[in-house]
Amino acid sequence: MKQKVYLNGEIIPREKATIDIEDRGYQFADGVYEVIAIYQGKPFKLTEHLERLVFSAAELEIECPPLEKLEQECQRYLASTDYSQQNGKIYLQLTRGVCSRTHAYPDGLESVLVMKAGPLGEKPESYFKEGVKIIIRPDERWSRCYVKSIALLPNIMAKKEAKREAAYETVMERDGFITEGSSANVFIVEKGTLITPPATNYILKGITRQTVIEDIAPQKGLEVKEESIALTRFLAADEIFLTGTTTEVMPVIQVNDKEVAKGQVGDVTQTLYQAYRQLTRSQ
Amino acid sequence: MKQKVYLNGEIIPREKATIDIEDRGYQFADGVYEVIAIYQGKPFKLTEHLERLVFSAAELEIECPPLEKLEQECQRYLASTDYSQQNGKIYLQLTRGVCSRTHAYPDGLESVLVMKAGPLGEKPESYFKEGVKIIIRPDERWSRCYVKSIALLPNIMAKKEAKREAAYETVMERDGFITEGSSANVFIVEKGTLITPPATNYILKGITRQTVIEDIAPQKGLEVKEESIALTRFLAADEIFLTGTTTEVMPVIQVNDKEVAKGQVGDVTQTLYQAYRQLTRSQ
Repeated sequence: MKQKVYLNGEIIPREKATIDIEDRGYQFADGVYEVIAIYQGKPFKLTEHLERLVFSAAELEIECPPLEKLEQECQRYLASTDYSQQNGKIYLQLTRGVCSRTHAYPDGLESVLVMKAGPLGEKPESYFKEGVKIIIRPDERWSRCYVKSIALLPNIMAKKEAKREAAYETVMERDGFITEGSSANVFIVEKGTLITPPATNYILKGITRQTVIEDIAPQKGLEVKEESIALTRFLAADEIFLTGTTTEVMPVIQVNDKEVAKGQVGDVTQTLYQAYRQLTRSQ
Repeated sequence: MKQKVYLNGEIIPREKATIDIEDRGYQFADGVYEVIAIYQGKPFKLTEHLERLVFSAAELEIECPPLEKLEQECQRYLASTDYSQQNGKIYLQLTRGVCSRTHAYPDGLESVLVMKAGPLGEKPESYFKEGVKIIIRPDERWSRCYVKSIALLPNIMAKKEAKREAAYETVMERDGFITEGSSANVFIVEKGTLITPPATNYILKGITRQTVIEDIAPQKGLEVKEESIALTRFLAADEIFLTGTTTEVMPVIQVNDKEVAKGQVGDVTQTLYQAYRQLTRSQ
């Protein structure tokens, strides 16, 4: 099937999907987004993702279609793609709209909604079985990370740095405390208890993070605490793992050049990872 | 004359100027920009603006044409617009390029260069003669403000807040010290000496800021110091003014609900403003 893209209510051929040079998303990073995993044609936690989009848009006063409409449009678009029967993902972006360039946004602009489906981008099995390396860098981002905005320049620079260091992810540290990865949340395990930084303004409240906290940990009888994690505590943890839509539950066995968690995928992480697989592949 | 836009070497009708939905500028704020004032058909400080663009691009590892080429293209485009004989401005944006969405940017992408000319947007004379109000808000931006990137979401939110409060600009404060406005630098005057925050990573080194420091202040025999300015010191200054390409040299007479500088445009600010007018309108 030829690739198709959703643009403002229309489903069009990929190559025709262009936006105006004065779309505020292009000139000001004035927009929000979501990435939704599709398993066997079914979006995972679609409502949660779209609720967060509505929330992010509201925080920035961007006009946003109501949740029900977003759900319908997402499903309608999905049905027109290659991913209506298989694994994939949908990238969804909502920008404030098009106007003559000016910082202070005019009220009442018509927002621009784009969706594009693609392969899920599952990570190699070895990452989950053997664990990955991360690096730690200062958190250079703005102070409203709880909004899932397209102002991702600090994130991409951090991710590139990770790649350069042959690491899976850069985990960021602000004032001595761990915040999150450039595109993933972070957890540690201490004596069987899961600990993750609280969802302050410095953190994006990830859907996979919430799935671990609200669905999987209770199901497995694991306690979860939301606590600030100092860098020293982080490095001394029994286990470390990352969560994210395509990161799933990813064990970490090396931080910078230092082995953590005895260089092995811990039991708790493995349990969570398997439960996450089960949950997502059997919906 | 019909509006024309520069897009990757071609000068095309405005309505045809679109970019791909997977331009990284649109999905990640992965780009840099400049706004260049045109006075009577001549770009002001063109080389300085383009040198800064080259610098910003290098900081982000974005492929950038060499300075000479940028100058030529800018002049060639300008000659095709309405602004080759009158006042105007050129907005110039360089993004990393187009690729399938992924945080860590691939090396060797072909960058995308867009230019669009428009009216200069001169501010009302009364702003300069009578002074303007500003508001102070916490600086929510990332820690690499010295790069002139299109990741301007915090800036537009700050500017909108100013508009809502019937103010000209939001000046930002980080850890008790003034940094800059959402689209302007800031100076104070103490006993005839100009003081402005040093060009650290928290500040964009404005071309108008440099023009005041390097051209106008020496010409007028005024001393300039680059010093951190605590909020209390800021509020007690004899005079306060903003600088920027379209802000020019803008006197401030009110901060939040408090009158500053006795509510009058100070002599030093007036001198600088007149000198800036002279410099820009008589090149």
